[in-house]
Amino acid sequence: MSAHDDLKALIRTIPDFPKPGIQFRDITTLLLDPRGFAQTIERMAAATRGKVDLVAGIEARGFLFAAALAVPLNAGVLLIRKDGKLPGATIAEDYALEYGQDRIAIHEDALVPGARVLLVDDLIATGGTARAAVRLIRKAGGIVSQAQFLVDLPDLGGADALRREEIAVDALVSFPGH
Amino acid sequence: MSAHDDLKALIRTIPDFPKPGIQFRDITTLLLDPRGFAQTIERMAAATRGKVDLVAGIEARGFLFAAALAVPLNAGVLLIRKDGKLPGATIAEDYALEYGQDRIAIHEDALVPGARVLLVDDLIATGGTARAAVRLIRKAGGIVSQAQFLVDLPDLGGADALRREEIAVDALVSFPGH
Repeated sequence: MSAHDDLKALIRTIPDFPKPGIQFRDITTLLLDPRGFAQTIERMAAATRGKVDLVAGIEARGFLFAAALAVPLNAGVLLIRKDGKLPGATIAEDYALEYGQDRIAIHEDALVPGARVLLVDDLIATGGTARAAVRLIRKAGGIVSQAQFLVDLPDLGGADALRREEIAVDALVSFPGH
Repeated sequence: MSAHDDLKALIRTIPDFPKPGIQFRDITTLLLDPRGFAQTIERMAAATRGKVDLVAGIEARGFLFAAALAVPLNAGVLLIRKDGKLPGATIAEDYALEYGQDRIAIHEDALVPGARVLLVDDLIATGGTARAAVRLIRKAGGIVSQAQFLVDLPDLGGADALRREEIAVDALVSFPGH
């Protein structure tokens, strides 16, 4: 029994989305639950180590956790967006998808060098997007030493890959075997 | 002088984005400022009338305000997403763009009939997306009587169009003449 089984029970599983064979872990049911969402943010805040200047959220679901967590941490919100969405000059990073690749970006002036950044997203699977986000933040001069997720799919190895980048990884809920 | 000029000063203007002639009001600089973002959420919470069950955020920047505001309001978060992004069965609404149209959706089981929903987004311009969101929430049985935005571009008429739908509209910052 995990300490966070109350949160796990609020996440529903939708079979065969976005394609046959994938068990999609749908967090929208947790978001709809006022106490479930508040508890998620409270536990993420409690698990945060040291002072954080910015909470970085990965588009789009990561924005939910970054924004809600920034307020109790007295931090700003850093948007990590799909390439082409930010209006100012950006720096970008590519990452591999199952077929092809994608690109995320931040404003090139978003970070003061040395800024301490907490990376958050709803879920970590293979971690390709999260590792690209870490490269992006580091390229901009930021320090990222911790990442937090609501859900970890540990068999896909993303959390371990982040740990090999010297990043402490926390997730409130885990689905082994995904 | 507005009471919220401190917030307005944190929003930067990027000329000619996404196309020539558009003055893009970029809120990412406000988001990066811990006090600016916290004040935004505090003032939105203070402007909320009556009990709210769900705060509905429009993808993607609306997610930031919906999530951060849901916690102090003890409300859940309702995601209004681009069509095709939600894993469960959805109901959708089309809305007109300058050229062509787009479609937003919510999970068909997201709302209990009679749920009181506060609609939020970063900015209201012509209000096409916001009005489609209102139609969607009402179609699902929800009650939406208030909408809040960080930025209003009043000359584009979106806030007035929402008011004609019996919705109270608040914005913290206004750019007349956009």
